[in-house]
Amino acid sequence: MQNAIFASMKSITSPQNSFIKDLLKLQDKARERKKKGVFIVEGQRELKLALAGSYEITHLLFDPSLCDTTTLTSFDTDTNKYVEISREVYKKLAYRESTEGIIAVLKSKDFSLDAVKFNTETPLVLVMESIEKPGNVGAMLRTADAANVDAVFIADPKADLYNPNIIRSSVGCLFTNQIAVGSSEEICEYLEAQEINIYSATLQNSNAYHLNDYTQPSALVVGTEATGLTEIWRERATQNINIPMQGTIDSMNVSVAAAILTFEAKRQRDFQ
Amino acid sequence: MQNAIFASMKSITSPQNSFIKDLLKLQDKARERKKKGVFIVEGQRELKLALAGSYEITHLLFDPSLCDTTTLTSFDTDTNKYVEISREVYKKLAYRESTEGIIAVLKSKDFSLDAVKFNTETPLVLVMESIEKPGNVGAMLRTADAANVDAVFIADPKADLYNPNIIRSSVGCLFTNQIAVGSSEEICEYLEAQEINIYSATLQNSNAYHLNDYTQPSALVVGTEATGLTEIWRERATQNINIPMQGTIDSMNVSVAAAILTFEAKRQRDFQ
Repeated sequence: MQNAIFASMKSITSPQNSFIKDLLKLQDKARERKKKGVFIVEGQRELKLALAGSYEITHLLFDPSLCDTTTLTSFDTDTNKYVEISREVYKKLAYRESTEGIIAVLKSKDFSLDAVKFNTETPLVLVMESIEKPGNVGAMLRTADAANVDAVFIADPKADLYNPNIIRSSVGCLFTNQIAVGSSEEICEYLEAQEINIYSATLQNSNAYHLNDYTQPSALVVGTEATGLTEIWRERATQNINIPMQGTIDSMNVSVAAAILTFEAKRQRDFQ
Repeated sequence: MQNAIFASMKSITSPQNSFIKDLLKLQDKARERKKKGVFIVEGQRELKLALAGSYEITHLLFDPSLCDTTTLTSFDTDTNKYVEISREVYKKLAYRESTEGIIAVLKSKDFSLDAVKFNTETPLVLVMESIEKPGNVGAMLRTADAANVDAVFIADPKADLYNPNIIRSSVGCLFTNQIAVGSSEEICEYLEAQEINIYSATLQNSNAYHLNDYTQPSALVVGTEATGLTEIWRERATQNINIPMQGTIDSMNVSVAAAILTFEAKRQRDFQ
């Protein structure tokens, strides 16, 4: 065990158990996740994607009335990690009603820019700056997976990425994308050093998004709906871009905007 | 007053008042909205859009500690429609915390296909079939407004359009789009009669969406994430289309898919 607080326990029936209380804190508080270096994943599909993404299980909690041991061993054969929990405990921990009786504690990764590797000369990167709603971050991670972008960069995040709402709304795509986190300054410098064109979604001094060539190394940068991108992205952009708004309202959901931009880039690349 | 049950009342301080109870039912139950022919809108922005969309106010409830009479008269000068409510009543009725002290009762419209009018020879229509989540319907209405599509057709809806979650998530774009509701069969027949090409988003016998010409009269049809479009749309499509999925997951949020398709059509039309 990496974390002494998570001493192995075989069976827990009380929601008042201190280990369970620690897990509840992990779900609620980014600070706790950071301190312990672990986070929680719920659902077999999400867990499968996390394991495919080389995440490591520290504990595998299961409600035996919902999940059999064959399923357990398909995730991890080390029975020392198994913790049987009662329905009452499971209900306390599970966010969703329709999950499959499995809750895993996984070791966090650090999302370092230095670790990013591109397998192409013409990477396509999605950058999101300071997005406030975890649901929007998750939705964009889902779109980024579908488009198979080469990396997702998260600039000055408002929430840590292991926020349960991000994991859930990404339907596990938090684990399938190559992700790096940094300040806007750091990410901007990185993109410039890698000679990746920066296309910042903003109204000021912008052209319509579809007029640009995204077949070259390209980063598509989106910011919050409320205040938009910060100055650094507007000023250091290769080109500021906008999506023409032709109706009554003047704004667009940020994850919808990111999808339109990303798939225009993919279309220009003929989905290669 | 069209509805006797809504006899005019000048001031209400108790959430137990029968008129307020009726309004709460209107928020909760589609059946009540249908029976009374009215629905509820919260927030000045949404109300403004509804009035611009020729909706008619039957009652204008206001919390005088949040909303002054100048604001009220900007919406409707007929003081017989005004109902002053206490903070307690306002809190009971308001979904959002940050609205501006106004809640309006509006007369419903019927969304008839017969009433649809196109101001162009080459209409672009978004069709959504049996979408389950009100949030997705609302998000697509928002995108449809941004793209200024010529109409939105709602086939076999799962919820009535005056569902408070649809109004909210559409940020008022329920009122800015030209909308018609019908069965899939009716809408299909309508599109065929109008010689509008049908592009159904489905995997079966489909090509990649960006390979088609949407500069001709075009309907883009999307269905539920769970089960996809029903047979009628797959079989009577001019062309079935798919958005290439190149990552680990095999599905996309329906409102994201609708946005990608709609803005590809707009791009091909050079946003004219």
